[in-house]
Parts: sequence; C-alpha cells; structure tokens
Amino acid sequence: MKQIYLDYAATTPVVPEVVDAVTDCLKNDFGNPSSMHRLGIQAEKRIKEAKNHISSLLKTSPDEIIFTSGGTEANNMAILGTAYDKKRSGMHCITTAIEHPSVLQAFKHLEKQGFEVTYLTVDKNGIISLDELKANLRRDTILISIMHVNNETGSIQPIHEIGALLEGLERKPVFHVDGIQAFGKVPLFPDRWGIDLLSMSGHKIHAPKGVGALYKRKDVRIQPILFGGNQQGGLRSGTENIPGIVGMGEGAKWVAQKLADDSSYLKRLKDKLIKGIQEALLNAVINGSVGESAPHILNVGFPGLKGEILLHALEEEGVYVSTGSACSSRERKLSHVLKAMGLDNRTAEGSIRISISYLTTTEEIDEFIPTLVRAVSRIERFTRR
Amino acid sequence: MKQIYLDYAATTPVVPEVVDAVTDCLKNDFGNPSSMHRLGIQAEKRIKEAKNHISSLLKTSPDEIIFTSGGTEANNMAILGTAYDKKRSGMHCITTAIEHPSVLQAFKHLEKQGFEVTYLTVDKNGIISLDELKANLRRDTILISIMHVNNETGSIQPIHEIGALLEGLERKPVFHVDGIQAFGKVPLFPDRWGIDLLSMSGHKIHAPKGVGALYKRKDVRIQPILFGGNQQGGLRSGTENIPGIVGMGEGAKWVAQKLADDSSYLKRLKDKLIKGIQEALLNAVINGSVGESAPHILNVGFPGLKGEILLHALEEEGVYVSTGSACSSRERKLSHVLKAMGLDNRTAEGSIRISISYLTTTEEIDEFIPTLVRAVSRIERFTRR
Repeated sequence: MKQIYLDYAATTPVVPEVVDAVTDCLKNDFGNPSSMHRLGIQAEKRIKEAKNHISSLLKTSPDEIIFTSGGTEANNMAILGTAYDKKRSGMHCITTAIEHPSVLQAFKHLEKQGFEVTYLTVDKNGIISLDELKANLRRDTILISIMHVNNETGSIQPIHEIGALLEGLERKPVFHVDGIQAFGKVPLFPDRWGIDLLSMSGHKIHAPKGVGALYKRKDVRIQPILFGGNQQGGLRSGTENIPGIVGMGEGAKWVAQKLADDSSYLKRLKDKLIKGIQEALLNAVINGSVGESAPHILNVGFPGLKGEILLHALEEEGVYVSTGSACSSRERKLSHVLKAMGLDNRTAEGSIRISISYLTTTEEIDEFIPTLVRAVSRIERFTRR
Repeated sequence: MKQIYLDYAATTPVVPEVVDAVTDCLKNDFGNPSSMHRLGIQAEKRIKEAKNHISSLLKTSPDEIIFTSGGTEANNMAILGTAYDKKRSGMHCITTAIEHPSVLQAFKHLEKQGFEVTYLTVDKNGIISLDELKANLRRDTILISIMHVNNETGSIQPIHEIGALLEGLERKPVFHVDGIQAFGKVPLFPDRWGIDLLSMSGHKIHAPKGVGALYKRKDVRIQPILFGGNQQGGLRSGTENIPGIVGMGEGAKWVAQKLADDSSYLKRLKDKLIKGIQEALLNAVINGSVGESAPHILNVGFPGLKGEILLHALEEEGVYVSTGSACSSRERKLSHVLKAMGLDNRTAEGSIRISISYLTTTEEIDEFIPTLVRAVSRIERFTRR
C-alpha cells in the first residue's frame, strides 16, 4: 500500500543529504571538541559550519547559536535561564494560552517558585491581541515568551509587531520566541525583529531528533540549566552532539535551498488541500485563520466525529495525520489550543492536524482528498448504525 | 602517517555496527514515539530494544532506563532531581573531591540554593575512605554521589561496599553513581550493589555523542529538570533522540560482546603499556593505584615536563592522548583530581592520560612506547637548551 505521510509537524523524515552528512560525521569526525589535539579542533570546525548554515537562514551572527538536545531544552533554557537571571529585577512573565507544553510546563515550574505568569488569550483564529499584551506589561515584567507558528493550528503571531512594541519600552523585557514550527517555513529574522531568544528544533527541518538550537542575542544574559564542563561558553555543558549538530546544519541548508527554489511551494499545496477539503466535505471546519497561518499546518474539524477514530481510519489506508500535537496526543485530552480559540467540544474532539513539507507532492494531495472523504463517510456510516 | 588514538576516555569512534544501525534508523524509522499511528509505535519499539541492550549489560529491568542527551544531563538529572525531590527531608549531600565537572558543578549549583555538600577526600591512589564516608553521614543526608571509575586516573571506588554500607542504614540516602567511564569496561550491577541512580554516556562506548542514560531504580523518586510533553513517564520531556538511542543500544550490545569474548583484553593491554613505560622511562610516575584501577585509563606523570607540550609532541607523530579530562583540558588549569590525590605540582603539570579501548591493538602499544620515549627526550633536549 502506498503511504502518504501528512504529519510533518510531529516530525520529519531525515532527507538523504542530511543522512549522508550525519553518516560521514559518524564515520570520520568522532573527536571531542574539548580535546586539545587536532581531532578536537576538527570537531569544533564542524560545529562552526553548522552554526553558519543556521545563522545564514536567520540572518544573524553564527556566535549567537547555542546547540541543545532539542526544542524542549531550548525552550526550557530560554525561559528558566532568563527567569533565574532576572529574578532580582522582577518575577512577572507573559506568555500565551496556546504555547507548546515545553513552554507552558516551564512556566508552571516557575510559578511553583513564586514567579507570576500572565497567559494571554487568543481570538477564534488563535491570534493574541497586542492591546492585551500592552495592558499586561508591568515594571516587573522580565520575560515575554510567544510562539511564532502554533504547532497544532499553524496560526502565526505578530512577532515583528510585538518586537517593535517591546523595543519602544523603557525597561525592555527579554523577548523569547518559540520558533520550532516556524524555522525554515516562514520568514523569521530575530535580529531585525527584536527577538532576544529563539528556539529551534532539528527534527522539524528534516534533520535528526536529539538536536535543537537556541539563538541568543549577543548582549542577552541567561543562566545555564545544565552544569558541567562549561562547553558552549559555559551556557550549555555537555559534550556537543556533533553528528546531530552537523545534521541540523545540513537540514537548515536544505530548507534554505527549498525556500530559495520556490518560496510559495508549501502555500500552494496548502491552498489546494483546503480547497479540496472544502469542496468535498461540506461540514468540515477549518480551525483558525486561513490567512494568518503557516503554509505547512492545517487543522480541520469534523463536528460529531472523533479525531482519534479518523486518524486510525486514515492509517488503515496508509495515511498518517495527527490529532493535536504529537507531544500531547497520547494523553487524549482536549487540545488546550483549540479550547483557547473557543472551539466547541464537538468540533475540537473531531479535529485532526494535517501537516505537509517540501517533500509533499501535488499527487499526494490529490490522492489524500478522496481517501479522507472515504474515511469520514465510513466512520459516519459506522457511527449511525 | 599512521595515527594511534589513545584518548578513548575523551570520546570513542563510532564502530561500524553502530554506524549502520544509526544510519538505518535515520533512513527508516523517523516516527515520533508520541504519535498515535504506527510510525510512532515503531519508534517506541526501537527505544525498547535499546533499553533491553543496556539493561542486559547492567542486569536490571529495561523500564529502569531513562534516556538523556548525554552523561552531563544524566548526572545533573540524578543530582538536582534527587535534591529537589528530597529537600524537605534534608539538605545535606555527600560527594567526592574527584568527581567529573558535571557532578561538581551540579553540587555548586545546589550550594547556591542552600544545600550543604561534603566533599570526601581521596588517598594518594585516588580512593575514598569508607570511614570518612561513615563519619560524614547525617540524619539530613539525602544524597550520596560517588563516581565508579575516575575519568582522569581510572581509579575505582568501592561502590559495592558503599552500597552495602548504605543499605544497612535506617534512613538510606539516595545513592547515585556516575558510571560514565565504568559502563561497559568494568563489572557494574546497580541492582545488586544498592545503587539507586547510575549515569551512562553513549559516546564513551562507541555510540554517538548526544545520548546518555540514567538507570533509576523503580522505587526511587526524582524531580524532572526538563519540562514539557511528559515523554519518558514525565521524567524527561522532549521528543526522544531515536537514532542516538538506537546507537547507544547497539553500542551496549557491542561492548557486551567484547566483554564476553575476552573480559581481560583491556587489562592485558594496560599491563603491557605500564610495563613498557616503566622499563623505557625511568622517571615516569604512574598516578594512582595500578591495582584498584580501570583497565582502560592510565595517568602518567613526567616530573619537570609540561603535559600539554608532550601532548602536542605526540600529536606531531600521529598519537592522540590528553592532559586531564577532555572536558576541562581547554581550561589549562591543574587537574583537581591529581591535586586531591596529593600530587606535587611538578608531577601534576607533567601528566598525561592514555586511554585505550577494545579497538586498541597490541601493535599500537608496541609502537606507542618508542614514540613516547622519542617525544619525551625531544622535549627534554629542547628544555635543557
């Protein structure tokens, strides 16, 4: 059976170029970057190359990249690291109700230690209000953490405008952006946009799991959250994951090339997907804005259906999608993102996330639509019995 | 020029069996273990296989293995995670003066938060005294963290005896062992030895960098130090590093086979190395015990020489060794381990670490000895001028 993978927001296959680079590194560059001899220096060079690929996509300086074990660690490091560094100036933070668990749980951890956290609401499109943000800024606000692209719906926050708003303040809080779903998919320029810290993940850009990165603006100070041999300027102790870092660099290079080749490729596919679904399935509801949304994530509700049952019905036909995010899908609770957008339970329960990548083809979308129609009607028949 | 790598304690090359397993995983098993569909289930299966390989070497249950981003994170998780969980019962911890920076710095971080830490001294062989440990145990002692094999000298602590001593206490503190240099090299059975938490690292056993593991005895509770999607039973959030985990499992399988084939291989090589050095270089000093020492690490001092200069002289002849540990070698300060053993500065400054692996051959040792002799006499000539 032909397989159609449409769960790229959960994780992406490692593309052959990246597999080759990682395998080559595993075979030939095994040095420890902390070693004083040439194998160490060679390993350090591989780190620098990877930083170059990432920073050239972000238009930042390579020294502003710190490698982590993934997006979760990057988010934790940004949030906890800023809070611990700035707690003498204030203990108030602002985030949104629709963040990834690695942001929300880091803030829950801070709340247990006496920090106060404001969770901004979102409208039905999943977008925050600049006015609400402004109204919640206080003299003791030390950190604002707002994701760029939401992992469940693809909704895009006005990061550029938020950055401009914060730049104008007398006491600018640190501005952290969870860019994990945005990096390599939508324009994202931390330096120009007033972003201080930006989280990225390798396995969302066709690089291996187990590696991520944090952009940290040169003059921004954070405390480390892992302690040891003072690697990466003391900010992230632990022998660097060279093969993972090489893979992430190659992944960044690969997506940069895809963007350069055809920057509207994903958008055209998503438009086709939306059109196909809307024409074939009249009661399907697109969750979130069609306009202010990332080109690779689509969240669709089928009121009255169960998303999980639809997921498995599609799986039987070789099609992979998800309900909510992979990270929380196993917990089988209603999506906190869809709830925050005010969706009724019936639609939220019947929602699936379809996510595409540069590897997705027009033919796959053409095949997917009738498969989805078949799956939905099969479930409806079954449910009616 | 032929290269002789004798810095295996810093990091190991990834063996072909492991490269193949990792590459196969990168190509074929890219699923996110949190996904509900079969690609997720397949990825989860790969994690279970890796746990089996590791736990069969340790003679523990596979569910007692938690994967981390490396040895540093495993040590941090064990120490900080225990301290945060037990702080209501007490705030006193015991460790040794010769631990790895990822243990010492984690304790420094705890001291800043009001914890009290006792650093046990070591004798000239780098071994702690059970009596000193006993004398420092208090009612509020919550954690004992003692490394098994020292990374700079190979000295072995009496872990089995410490475990037995602690088991006899009315209020048993949590017993953490940094097993990073021990795992796969010397016998190590956490369950039988009363160890509650044991840290391991992939890149010390011919697996990739960026992955490690923590053995956590079933009934021992720790707090997580990374927050998010509650992967790995909530103890370590973040999408699992599947290729790294697969690699670590294969690495454990590979070293288990080597141990089964010839458990005294490393020991014989090290004996040959010591004999060769002692015969050819009369003023060489073996740092630490020859008996109570791991079979893969040898620390030798050449009083009056500079270790760093010797390292580079050897490097010119294609031989790689290190001064102290890789993790701190770039900082160029005198080894805290050698200092704790009471070495005079002259010998400590002139010390190098030679470390071998199952890949080291008798021929390499045969070639290394005259190379070392040449390098030492070249430096002595140069220094005398």
